[in-house]
Amino acid sequence: MDVLTPLLRGSALTAMFSDANTVQGMLDFEAALARAEARCGVIPQEAVAAIEDTCQVQNIDLLALADAAASAGNLAIPLVKQLTAQVKMRDEKAARYVHWAATSQDAIDTGFVLQLRNALRETDAMLTRLLSTLAEQTETHRQTVMPGRTWMQHALPITFGLKLAGTLDALLRWQRRLREMQSRVLTLQFGGAAGTLASLNEHGPAVAQALAQELHLIQPDTPWHSQRDRFLEVGHGYAGVCGTLGKFANDFSLLMQTEVAEVCEPTAPGRGGSSTMPHKRNPIGCAAILTAAQRTPGLMATLYASQIQQHERALGGWQAEWEVLPELLMLTGAAIVQSEQLVRGMQVDAAKMRADLDITHGLIMAESVTLALAKHLGKQDAHHLVETLCHAALDQKRPLLPLLEADSRITAWFTSTELHTLLDPSRATGSADHFVRQVLTRYQEQRHDALLSD
Amino acid sequence: MDVLTPLLRGSALTAMFSDANTVQGMLDFEAALARAEARCGVIPQEAVAAIEDTCQVQNIDLLALADAAASAGNLAIPLVKQLTAQVKMRDEKAARYVHWAATSQDAIDTGFVLQLRNALRETDAMLTRLLSTLAEQTETHRQTVMPGRTWMQHALPITFGLKLAGTLDALLRWQRRLREMQSRVLTLQFGGAAGTLASLNEHGPAVAQALAQELHLIQPDTPWHSQRDRFLEVGHGYAGVCGTLGKFANDFSLLMQTEVAEVCEPTAPGRGGSSTMPHKRNPIGCAAILTAAQRTPGLMATLYASQIQQHERALGGWQAEWEVLPELLMLTGAAIVQSEQLVRGMQVDAAKMRADLDITHGLIMAESVTLALAKHLGKQDAHHLVETLCHAALDQKRPLLPLLEADSRITAWFTSTELHTLLDPSRATGSADHFVRQVLTRYQEQRHDALLSD
Amino acid sequence: MDVLTPLLRGSALTAMFSDANTVQGMLDFEAALARAEARCGVIPQEAVAAIEDTCQVQNIDLLALADAAASAGNLAIPLVKQLTAQVKMRDEKAARYVHWAATSQDAIDTGFVLQLRNALRETDAMLTRLLSTLAEQTETHRQTVMPGRTWMQHALPITFGLKLAGTLDALLRWQRRLREMQSRVLTLQFGGAAGTLASLNEHGPAVAQALAQELHLIQPDTPWHSQRDRFLEVGHGYAGVCGTLGKFANDFSLLMQTEVAEVCEPTAPGRGGSSTMPHKRNPIGCAAILTAAQRTPGLMATLYASQIQQHERALGGWQAEWEVLPELLMLTGAAIVQSEQLVRGMQVDAAKMRADLDITHGLIMAESVTLALAKHLGKQDAHHLVETLCHAALDQKRPLLPLLEADSRITAWFTSTELHTLLDPSRATGSADHFVRQVLTRYQEQRHDALLSD
Amino acid sequence: MDVLTPLLRGSALTAMFSDANTVQGMLDFEAALARAEARCGVIPQEAVAAIEDTCQVQNIDLLALADAAASAGNLAIPLVKQLTAQVKMRDEKAARYVHWAATSQDAIDTGFVLQLRNALRETDAMLTRLLSTLAEQTETHRQTVMPGRTWMQHALPITFGLKLAGTLDALLRWQRRLREMQSRVLTLQFGGAAGTLASLNEHGPAVAQALAQELHLIQPDTPWHSQRDRFLEVGHGYAGVCGTLGKFANDFSLLMQTEVAEVCEPTAPGRGGSSTMPHKRNPIGCAAILTAAQRTPGLMATLYASQIQQHERALGGWQAEWEVLPELLMLTGAAIVQSEQLVRGMQVDAAKMRADLDITHGLIMAESVTLALAKHLGKQDAHHLVETLCHAALDQKRPLLPLLEADSRITAWFTSTELHTLLDPSRATGSADHFVRQVLTRYQEQRHDALLSD
Repeated sequence: MDVLTPLLRGSALTAMFSDANTVQGMLDFEAALARAEARCGVIPQEAVAAIEDTCQVQNIDLLALADAAASAGNLAIPLVKQLTAQVKMRDEKAARYVHWAATSQDAIDTGFVLQLRNALRETDAMLTRLLSTLAEQTETHRQTVMPGRTWMQHALPITFGLKLAGTLDALLRWQRRLREMQSRVLTLQFGGAAGTLASLNEHGPAVAQALAQELHLIQPDTPWHSQRDRFLEVGHGYAGVCGTLGKFANDFSLLMQTEVAEVCEPTAPGRGGSSTMPHKRNPIGCAAILTAAQRTPGLMATLYASQIQQHERALGGWQAEWEVLPELLMLTGAAIVQSEQLVRGMQVDAAKMRADLDITHGLIMAESVTLALAKHLGKQDAHHLVETLCHAALDQKRPLLPLLEADSRITAWFTSTELHTLLDPSRATGSADHFVRQVLTRYQEQRHDALLSD
Repeated sequence: MDVLTPLLRGSALTAMFSDANTVQGMLDFEAALARAEARCGVIPQEAVAAIEDTCQVQNIDLLALADAAASAGNLAIPLVKQLTAQVKMRDEKAARYVHWAATSQDAIDTGFVLQLRNALRETDAMLTRLLSTLAEQTETHRQTVMPGRTWMQHALPITFGLKLAGTLDALLRWQRRLREMQSRVLTLQFGGAAGTLASLNEHGPAVAQALAQELHLIQPDTPWHSQRDRFLEVGHGYAGVCGTLGKFANDFSLLMQTEVAEVCEPTAPGRGGSSTMPHKRNPIGCAAILTAAQRTPGLMATLYASQIQQHERALGGWQAEWEVLPELLMLTGAAIVQSEQLVRGMQVDAAKMRADLDITHGLIMAESVTLALAKHLGKQDAHHLVETLCHAALDQKRPLLPLLEADSRITAWFTSTELHTLLDPSRATGSADHFVRQVLTRYQEQRHDALLSD
Repeated sequence: MDVLTPLLRGSALTAMFSDANTVQGMLDFEAALARAEARCGVIPQEAVAAIEDTCQVQNIDLLALADAAASAGNLAIPLVKQLTAQVKMRDEKAARYVHWAATSQDAIDTGFVLQLRNALRETDAMLTRLLSTLAEQTETHRQTVMPGRTWMQHALPITFGLKLAGTLDALLRWQRRLREMQSRVLTLQFGGAAGTLASLNEHGPAVAQALAQELHLIQPDTPWHSQRDRFLEVGHGYAGVCGTLGKFANDFSLLMQTEVAEVCEPTAPGRGGSSTMPHKRNPIGCAAILTAAQRTPGLMATLYASQIQQHERALGGWQAEWEVLPELLMLTGAAIVQSEQLVRGMQVDAAKMRADLDITHGLIMAESVTLALAKHLGKQDAHHLVETLCHAALDQKRPLLPLLEADSRITAWFTSTELHTLLDPSRATGSADHFVRQVLTRYQEQRHDALLSD
Repeated sequence: MDVLTPLLRGSALTAMFSDANTVQGMLDFEAALARAEARCGVIPQEAVAAIEDTCQVQNIDLLALADAAASAGNLAIPLVKQLTAQVKMRDEKAARYVHWAATSQDAIDTGFVLQLRNALRETDAMLTRLLSTLAEQTETHRQTVMPGRTWMQHALPITFGLKLAGTLDALLRWQRRLREMQSRVLTLQFGGAAGTLASLNEHGPAVAQALAQELHLIQPDTPWHSQRDRFLEVGHGYAGVCGTLGKFANDFSLLMQTEVAEVCEPTAPGRGGSSTMPHKRNPIGCAAILTAAQRTPGLMATLYASQIQQHERALGGWQAEWEVLPELLMLTGAAIVQSEQLVRGMQVDAAKMRADLDITHGLIMAESVTLALAKHLGKQDAHHLVETLCHAALDQKRPLLPLLEADSRITAWFTSTELHTLLDPSRATGSADHFVRQVLTRYQEQRHDALLSD
């Protein structure tokens, strides 16, 4: 499926989950294990250098590894075999201590946590760029009035800034959640064959501590070979980001429809053209984001189902994580990158937004009239009267204003000038700007928070 | 589906999401709205009493409400109609101010947040009971040796305490996550028709603040009608708990298999009998937990997909939450209750656990021998030699010990007494007890933490 | 959740899956079992009447049943107890033969198949009504020209008839699939405690055959207690229908957007109004359909995961079906009913459709020009030239026609009249009508097919 | 993720969905299109050769294609560009007619259908091999008695043949479903930019017919760019197969547990060993099958959600199919291959199966006694009496037989010999063999059916 990778997984995260990096993560575990065990006197110090030097992915034959994994059932078993053979060539004695006291899952899980640490750091940086771009555009469009839409119908005027602030608000929460989870997630896996570190006898805790230090990982209270809530939480964080971006991209594509045309994707040569229709500008950024968002719910369903792992190591649930979790992260990474490009380069047609407010001939302002009138007639009678006039306006395809001006039940309370003011959308955005400012303030605060892992 | 409710949704959470409580949540919003708006001078103080007094679910005709909702598209529209009519009978003027400036989703979402607050509090209490029971049993079984199993095969000895501690460890994290999320989740929804509070003019922020105070809810930076990460996070927390319990129940049912019989569900008259087989004791507690755990991944998939909500109010995504999220909470609630009963009353057959360790004629201790031998021969040679002897033991259906004692490559390094010791499972649980103590210590710490909302 | 049932599950299928009908299905199994076993001489003929007469849901205390099910683990065990007690009061001897040789799952599964038979028959009738309405509207709108939209952008002209025909085409396939599956699905479950009918000794096959005859169900080659592909297939059929309807409702809601307004939902008093905005007409039919379609993927994920049922009867997977499958059918049933109402009463604004074709100033017709030009210049050069002119038209906000008429590279090949013709959308719907006629022909053929079960 | 492919996607299907084959499928469409259009006089016959000759994947630069797809939004746009450029070098005039009148989705969908045809044919062959092996083993084990297990507890005796026949029965249905769907699925996609074949004017139907003939595909009544039920049905068929195999693998792994050990995976050097425990034989075949089965529900959830495709071409839903559907097929393909190896080489320990029947000291035969006794006492009294004796047997850890022989309420009706016979499991498999024979007969019938596409 590589030919689709630039289109669907185009972010820095993708390289982080390459085969080579997956194997290197496991090798980093093996090297650190040797150092930690030597520090604790479990293996001879002399064995470390040969092991450490050999733990480079270039030394591994990945094709042979892939083939051997098919009958071994996982990558670690054949990797340890290759590694041991390589170490043996350098230092026969050292080869005895490769992978000492560890189990396959220790190497695979910890290796993945190391990849994850890079991914979380890069994701935070990518999110920070997106948040910055989004905050800037939110600020820019604080006063850009446009139709608010509920049930896919015009409701009341809002600002484009408010719409952007909604996404900014949610993404700020997701960034915080992703940061918070690091204190649970960046955790060493080290339990040996059944999670007891039995083969280390009384040295288990000390080696585990030394190993966590070597890798700068958190030391857990107990191995977690079949307790997978940490990885589930990671998946949740990314799927959540992807869902928020999917919501934004869907809204964007709605606003970019030919009839609406209030926004447009950035243009570039070759971007979003059609093979047959020369006038087409396809929202390809939105499409890429929505494709990712379309897939994350199913990937998450798999991760939830995979919580049920048997006993001390699972048959199916663990193995399902191997591709599903990286896939979810890579898709989401691409969605973040695409979103940042989209928000940064998007074309906003404020005039069209303003013009669309008049499509309903003033009906979008009906609530203003209703509420002003309600002070005199009560809410329900006011609602009823204005609804009648609205339906008349719709039936006659006339603006609401002259109908209001012609109705004595209305003019009893309002002058024509007052009616004009009541029907002005730009005066009717209520607390939109207040909300925007609150979100922007929180953005400023959060950008000064440090990443826990720094 | 009510006839299955006691079986599938048997916890205190179920009543909290009854029709009556759903409607009462919305009425509590309406009453508080009237108080808040009166405090801010938006509606007359005199209107409050009639509204507040009427906001009791007993005043609502639920059947009529259900029917009207079918053509209105949600519960709030017909509820406000019924409420207004009822208030009108008490105080015609007050009726004008019912639901003033709010939108349907404000009432529905906030009402649900109020239900959620109760549910989260009750869930924390239920989890606390479960954790307490689990901690006690973990302590009890710190030294109960049993086979650790990986890939559904005997691996090395562990303790039953370690197995329980794994679940305790994960549940402690879930409890913490559920507590942490309250500061994001227990949040007022109040934005009016398009999220701008337009009809309150300059009073929007003040009324919102007063309303949040009235309801003891957090005031958000901006309305979140179509940004649903908060409810998604709630779903995630419950689905996570349910997954951890599903893992426990699955392990339990595996241990309870006729051939294994290391544990048994609590017995009670009528519990778990078969309609045709008098000797059957079915693991009905496990079944109930697993049924819940089987359904949560699909429910979560729906919530993730429902993040893509259109513009300022959605068409499908929001409505899907209405039943899916309560269902997920009720199923999980039942799983917690069932788990607590199961852990509290479970029968543990330590003798059978010990006996099962001998099934493989000592092969389960092979790693001990390998590692002891590895100090002399190196890991790979040791592994190879012991593997050969193991296969011989399997082929000849003989215990491993005599084969070891008969092999000069072994006896060159170990006396018979040393071999006996190497093959004693109870000396081979490594750091299991260390891990258990760490988890129990964290349990003690966490139980003294207060719930944020208290 | 009953208060939402009229809104979300408003079809005749809902009553079919009521508690009472669920229990009656099981009782119908028990009555037929008694008759079949008496016919085969397994139980005395005299026992039948008392059993048969008692097998009415009115005789069952559903509340007590629900409570007892919680500790029994399923509905059948306490139902058989109640039934036996009731029969005993009529005829002590007959009571001995209640549920003879059957297992709980035989009663529960077969009872559900009986409900399913009714549901499939009713669904076929509901689909037939929808297909008929849809075929009529397709015919009506065979020449109604509108913009075709790809990537949410205008592409080329199509007809509204073609759009409707696409849905009709897919629904015809789903109806056929639903009909075809009856020969696999409407199958007796009868295997006794472990699927061997052991307690019937040599009479097993004869009783099974008689029982299938009594219930007019297919006799399977072997019991299927833990092989659930039949119910999965049913779920698939309904989820498929719901997905097709969701696609239609989503398109409809897009066409009904304020700026597009090419269609509108049927209007009726109280239907789709807003609680605060008098001018709003919400697409509540679309919302109901989309809500169903939003939930079916998650429900199906559960059914797929539930295929993994342990050994001869499952722990979790079977139990998960009990509510998930009926829920899926009820949601889909409502979507069918809502769709039929929507298609029947929808308002189509052909003038707006035609007007929207001009929004792009003729650009939607650019491909026609390109292709005509390609005969002279080759496809790529033609594409390039027309693309340039289109971008000029967009930049200058001018119609394409004058730009074409002013370009000598164009006028070298086409007269002004030819250009007018090339730019006429109603001449540019290609084979749309051909496709529509083909689908309508198939509709006519299929409506004369009989349901297999009739 | 390639390094995991041999482990997770090890079947002939994987190569069929390689990048090269994906692109070749599209090129086959383009070549056939040229031939068809020339046959219909739409493009010059002279243009065909150059196009046809160039339509070989070796002529395509896949890396450049992948990069260009990222900004084009799909593979077809840059592929047509590369193709056109290549054709131009051979025959400048012919290059004008590349991809004539088609749209990207025509090439992508039809190309995928061509891959699918190969995959369905190969899948049928793989299934046929599996069915043959399974039928053989079913026959072999028709009389192999073992415990039937419900709720993960011993229920009554069954035969291993019956267990295998259950899987055979379900797989026969899936093979039939997969064959039946070919008449719907192997369908040409050809609609042009908006599904009207507008650019072919009156030649649309003729070209479509010729193209379908060229490719030996079914001609649909209307293009199906955004009606995706065909591909959904394919996914369903594979996910169904995978679920059935997952059920089998899960049962197998349960039977292979150390305590049960009634079956064992085939052994081979390097297969299923542990990195640290020399005695381990891991069920790696089961693990691979279960990993696939763990992932298919989430993949299907995505396909169901992707039914909602906007208007005439989708934004997200279509694109999500590109990787999800092949992934599902490749995972399932591997599950079929693994299952065939597993069934063919599995070791069955009939003696252990027989021995396990005695674990409950005869309790597994309690139903036999109950039913024999029921003829005298009625079912409920018999059940009650036997249940009491069973609990006594359990409490005293004694076999049931002496307790029966010592109870006068039993000996009043049965001699000791009769009791022995009643407690013999091999006489208590009821209709198991009858069911097995029925399934084997159907297997024989079905294997003579031809594949529709042959």
